[in-house]
Amino acid sequence: MADPIITLTTDFGDSPYVAAMKGVILGINPQARLVDLSHQIPPQNVRHAAYFLAASIPYFPPAAIHVVVVDPGVGSERRILLVEIDQQRLLVPDNGCWTKLTQRNQAVPQVRCVEATEFWRQPVSSTFHGRDIFGPVAGHLSLGIDPARLGPVVQEWVTLPLPRVEESVDGLRGEVEFVDHFGNLISNIPAGSCPRPASIIIATHTVRRLVRTYSDGAPGELVALTSSEGMLEIAVNQGSAAQLLGAGVGTPVGVVDGSN
Amino acid sequence: MADPIITLTTDFGDSPYVAAMKGVILGINPQARLVDLSHQIPPQNVRHAAYFLAASIPYFPPAAIHVVVVDPGVGSERRILLVEIDQQRLLVPDNGCWTKLTQRNQAVPQVRCVEATEFWRQPVSSTFHGRDIFGPVAGHLSLGIDPARLGPVVQEWVTLPLPRVEESVDGLRGEVEFVDHFGNLISNIPAGSCPRPASIIIATHTVRRLVRTYSDGAPGELVALTSSEGMLEIAVNQGSAAQLLGAGVGTPVGVVDGSN
Amino acid sequence: MADPIITLTTDFGDSPYVAAMKGVILGINPQARLVDLSHQIPPQNVRHAAYFLAASIPYFPPAAIHVVVVDPGVGSERRILLVEIDQQRLLVPDNGCWTKLTQRNQAVPQVRCVEATEFWRQPVSSTFHGRDIFGPVAGHLSLGIDPARLGPVVQEWVTLPLPRVEESVDGLRGEVEFVDHFGNLISNIPAGSCPRPASIIIATHTVRRLVRTYSDGAPGELVALTSSEGMLEIAVNQGSAAQLLGAGVGTPVGVVDGSN
Repeated sequence: MADPIITLTTDFGDSPYVAAMKGVILGINPQARLVDLSHQIPPQNVRHAAYFLAASIPYFPPAAIHVVVVDPGVGSERRILLVEIDQQRLLVPDNGCWTKLTQRNQAVPQVRCVEATEFWRQPVSSTFHGRDIFGPVAGHLSLGIDPARLGPVVQEWVTLPLPRVEESVDGLRGEVEFVDHFGNLISNIPAGSCPRPASIIIATHTVRRLVRTYSDGAPGELVALTSSEGMLEIAVNQGSAAQLLGAGVGTPVGVVDGSN
Repeated sequence: MADPIITLTTDFGDSPYVAAMKGVILGINPQARLVDLSHQIPPQNVRHAAYFLAASIPYFPPAAIHVVVVDPGVGSERRILLVEIDQQRLLVPDNGCWTKLTQRNQAVPQVRCVEATEFWRQPVSSTFHGRDIFGPVAGHLSLGIDPARLGPVVQEWVTLPLPRVEESVDGLRGEVEFVDHFGNLISNIPAGSCPRPASIIIATHTVRRLVRTYSDGAPGELVALTSSEGMLEIAVNQGSAAQLLGAGVGTPVGVVDGSN
Repeated sequence: MADPIITLTTDFGDSPYVAAMKGVILGINPQARLVDLSHQIPPQNVRHAAYFLAASIPYFPPAAIHVVVVDPGVGSERRILLVEIDQQRLLVPDNGCWTKLTQRNQAVPQVRCVEATEFWRQPVSSTFHGRDIFGPVAGHLSLGIDPARLGPVVQEWVTLPLPRVEESVDGLRGEVEFVDHFGNLISNIPAGSCPRPASIIIATHTVRRLVRTYSDGAPGELVALTSSEGMLEIAVNQGSAAQLLGAGVGTPVGVVDGSN
């Protein structure tokens, strides 16, 4: 049987905090296989984490345990949750970072509040629950303990308000939801809901060229295409749309019928 | 027997794309051991990837599978190749990123065009073949499928033009091929081909001090030495030669007899 | 039994050097599990490495081997050491990067000088001992060779001068020892030694608010608290204290009785 997989997603950057968490997990289960997803979530940016998780967690096999520590409320009364959704298990602070996973297919999550201190590292610091709670609990889970021992099932949790797409007679109005490393702008508008042809209005630009992939554009050309997650994406072939347009998360994106 | 090793080299930066690829591979082979080589290849910089691979892949044991996604042509007609060279296996876009591996010892590669869609994730996006083709194919390869099932052997592929060293009566003329994290400038001139003593001309400087290692120079001193790959390297002890000289990839480097 | 764990801590950044080290280790022991601690130690910053290691290594299980390559003296006469301390094993350059580990509980280290060339990669370069010495020796150690075969026990080694806390009638005087990714300033003053209430003087600011965790402060408020390592920490809730105060490693921190 394969060694259990524990993935790590944090906003710790390159810091001893990541290393300490890894040590604690391996101290509890030396057979755990640690998989770094990212430690560069922008500090305390729960919305970024929400997008990140929705675009990566669903691709993992069911056995994995996903530890997410983007946690501006560490040490406060905010709870820690074990979320089971779509056969994935996540350990998360109760701040809505996993909200977007519920959009995918109206999956019904089972949520527990992590309360049983016997699985925590002692003493528990007020500032580093990654090392003292998340890590140890993940280690124990990977050893096969019954999740019911961690704490009770709860029916309420924090949900993150996600930007909506508005429909009007003029067309659709959404916004940029994620900017990737290349400067591609991924909107919250499903590509399949756009009229064909379409005109896409973003910042001061109108994009009329809908292409299949980046290299269908001329070098430097602003184009629109379907993102790998199925959303309307604005990109520049061999360049950065974010930089060209001065756009970022939250920049409005409009789509109107392009046949006029 | 050891779990199969799959290495990852991409220009994805810290993004959900890396995480999604890891999920897909582990979904196909939960026993795969993922080894990150780099996700910080400068975006779409095939030449950088070529140097990177030549300076790292040869050190791996034969069993490893190396997945390389630096792929400005994703979704276009560019092919995906399985390259077997010097007992290493690479999955690469057909853009020459592996060209420099063939320089090492005139190794003869065996190259297949990856065509068999049965090993791909469906539906295949036009913008993320790392998740939909490279990752799944690597997963299946790590399970031991016969490479012949992936696609036919091909005899032609894209090769990257690599900078040459020119010899003249005055000496050698090459260029900076790689700048490392410390700002050391690694040229394409084999250190063994330099006359001793030598004068090395780069930017507006002439370097006459050939040393064995960085700390042989005074702090801040510009020196030349043999790189860990055997090439002529220009460095500053405890500093950055790139910054001091304003030099980078492509900066000409001249070597002349230093006994005059 | 679990596959052996080898952790990596370097200042190599994202470079082929990290990848080459991984290849060499896996070439010697294909079953080794590589765990990245950090490759972003600031170049040649031994003091940063010392803090990093003290805040992470103690959390690992005894079986791990910790490879540390922050090594401004590479290729010089500086020695390479195998340090056994508190059931942890480290391969380090003899530059004091592990000094802070000895502070923890007056642990008595056993130190060997790594001399037996039979476990090195040949030929040994003058600039890349990570690939040619550290990596191969770690690989062999993970295969279970007797450490005594690596070289003799030595009684002397380089120690890093660590900043001291001075006590006076006025109070305590220390300094910032580490700045984390969030801009939190961690001092070398044990939080337990501070008077309550206390006034903390740093840069041009006086902090009178001692809190339990970041979110106890108002957004943007400068607060003091106990770091996850038990030290006095200065932070800004949802912000960067380093940026707000223009402070960094070495900035003096004073603590005086706050009841006046």
